[in-house]
Amino acid sequence: MTKDQKDQRPKTKDYFAVIMAGGIGSRFWPMSTSEYPKQFHDMLGVGESLLQRTFARFAAIIPTENILISTNKKYKELVLAQLPDISEQQLLLEPVMRNTAPCVLYAALKIHHQNKNAVMVIAPSDHWIDDETEFQRNILTAFKASSQQDILMTLGIKPSNPNTGYGYIQFNGTNEIKDVLNFTEKPNLETAKQFLSEGNYLWNAGIFVWSTQSILKAYKQSLPTMEQLFEAGNYVWNTDFEDDFIEDNYPKAESISIDFGIMEKANNVKVLPVDFGWNDLGTWGSLHQKLAKDNNQNAVVNAETIFRDASNNMVRTQKGKHVVIQGLDNFIVVEKDNVLLICPKDKEQDIKEIVAEVKAKFSTKLT
Amino acid sequence: MTKDQKDQRPKTKDYFAVIMAGGIGSRFWPMSTSEYPKQFHDMLGVGESLLQRTFARFAAIIPTENILISTNKKYKELVLAQLPDISEQQLLLEPVMRNTAPCVLYAALKIHHQNKNAVMVIAPSDHWIDDETEFQRNILTAFKASSQQDILMTLGIKPSNPNTGYGYIQFNGTNEIKDVLNFTEKPNLETAKQFLSEGNYLWNAGIFVWSTQSILKAYKQSLPTMEQLFEAGNYVWNTDFEDDFIEDNYPKAESISIDFGIMEKANNVKVLPVDFGWNDLGTWGSLHQKLAKDNNQNAVVNAETIFRDASNNMVRTQKGKHVVIQGLDNFIVVEKDNVLLICPKDKEQDIKEIVAEVKAKFSTKLT
Repeated sequence: MTKDQKDQRPKTKDYFAVIMAGGIGSRFWPMSTSEYPKQFHDMLGVGESLLQRTFARFAAIIPTENILISTNKKYKELVLAQLPDISEQQLLLEPVMRNTAPCVLYAALKIHHQNKNAVMVIAPSDHWIDDETEFQRNILTAFKASSQQDILMTLGIKPSNPNTGYGYIQFNGTNEIKDVLNFTEKPNLETAKQFLSEGNYLWNAGIFVWSTQSILKAYKQSLPTMEQLFEAGNYVWNTDFEDDFIEDNYPKAESISIDFGIMEKANNVKVLPVDFGWNDLGTWGSLHQKLAKDNNQNAVVNAETIFRDASNNMVRTQKGKHVVIQGLDNFIVVEKDNVLLICPKDKEQDIKEIVAEVKAKFSTKLT
Repeated sequence: MTKDQKDQRPKTKDYFAVIMAGGIGSRFWPMSTSEYPKQFHDMLGVGESLLQRTFARFAAIIPTENILISTNKKYKELVLAQLPDISEQQLLLEPVMRNTAPCVLYAALKIHHQNKNAVMVIAPSDHWIDDETEFQRNILTAFKASSQQDILMTLGIKPSNPNTGYGYIQFNGTNEIKDVLNFTEKPNLETAKQFLSEGNYLWNAGIFVWSTQSILKAYKQSLPTMEQLFEAGNYVWNTDFEDDFIEDNYPKAESISIDFGIMEKANNVKVLPVDFGWNDLGTWGSLHQKLAKDNNQNAVVNAETIFRDASNNMVRTQKGKHVVIQGLDNFIVVEKDNVLLICPKDKEQDIKEIVAEVKAKFSTKLT
């Protein structure tokens, strides 16, 4: 599709997006900290933060004023600084972290109050997508289906390997949009291999599409207490009272994921298999995968480097840092401000443990 | 010896010291650079630079005004800043690097012009000595012998291991001060082991003691061209014309070491075996040896560190840096300003090569 064609595609007032930007990204410490998490960083060195990139991806098919950002209230200024085109009305500010279900409900009610015919996409702010045009085509397909049927849709990534870090979706059907048979949380390697050989499994990327009508109905069915808690605020959405209502009531909501609280209980869940070059940038290793690499598979962001007998490393520093690495294979070397981390890439699951140790031994300010 | 006893030892106006502070210490890159070499750093984190420590070691037994500093003229301000008690008259400023023989001759002439009975010690500015009292006792012994006899003395370190990085001195005799039979440049391991088993070999630490009369006589014999070149300046020493004379003539001198140019040719060379805990701090590895270490043999200067499954590492950063290292054994990790070096400790001989690569790829300013 050419740029001209893209610009001619319909942008409809019924299309909404909710970008989830409240995470901490602690596996990317010391780059990502609770003060300045991953989604606000230009992790790949492309000139935009992941949040900015995610926003732009939706802005091509959704009216800017219909793109909402869900985040912790402490990131309010950071979001407004990175997305100068949005108003405070477009922010869903969580006073406390309560996993995804309360936040999606809040978003759905706020949007539904604005537009009873709304269809909405929920997506993480911190993933990478290679083929944005394909992504947009997929979202429009899901929007269309969701506006016509009472379904809860998820986008399922065609798996390229038996990754044990993702959830899997088992599907059935011959249409473009498939019935979901089952969700499986992170499987072990054997199970993951089995899934791939069976051919009807997709990765759960946490990208959901539905009409506000359908999702609100699902909350009434599966999370009625939560639904009632938020329903009581129906007079406040998009008014000056919204903040106070959320401040008082959001902390009372059950902390539960949309997957567990809604998707795994509903019987009208559909999946659209997609293949747009997805990477959740969940770990330094997945970032390494995504980046351009030298002949020895070293990937570098910002640093000027000399590698000697060094391979498969992931190096990220502040701009202008000169790094000489000799004799390291498969390491992460990350420097940010007054912190330097050197850690084997295959031990990156230890980084959460490291962050806890840094908090205890150094300072919480560093994490 | 108590402090009171030490203060009662003779300080005689005939005692002189020349501290050699013109080196670049490139094996300590990126800590040591040509702009700010090793001797000006507090390499061990003791609160004083190596130069300051060396100066203080001599100042306990030699009048302050008799301690001269030989260095490249570009370090003039650095020396004066670190040693505020000395005058510009005490600086021997080399306009170009010409190895040690020209510099020792310049020093000897300048001192001899001041005091015909002078005995002088020449010593590097960038070594570490554990037992300073013992060192001072040894120097006084050598001063005494040199003022009474026409000899060229060197201090020989009792070797603790078959180190292949040092020169060896073979000696003979039963007196405290021994005759030197032979100098051997850095031997191979087999030869070094042989030397140790023979028992009459010492390490050459580059610390020499002699009267100005004896050393000037030796130059006349072994390096007559150089001697004549500098002898022509006998009217300028310690006058306003000294700088100009050196500027004009020093570059004309042959670049040759005192060991090769004088010591190995003379037949009146003596050695005083000494054992004051000497470390030439020649490499990051020797610095590591010298520093306090944790239970896993990690040595740290300045950094605040968390080690996980990491041992035998040498870490040095700017103050206030927080460093987390997982899974590294026997590495050097050094950060200074905008440079970070990670290199196996047993590849530290590659650092000179690295410095050349940094010059070529990044900037000479970094080296």
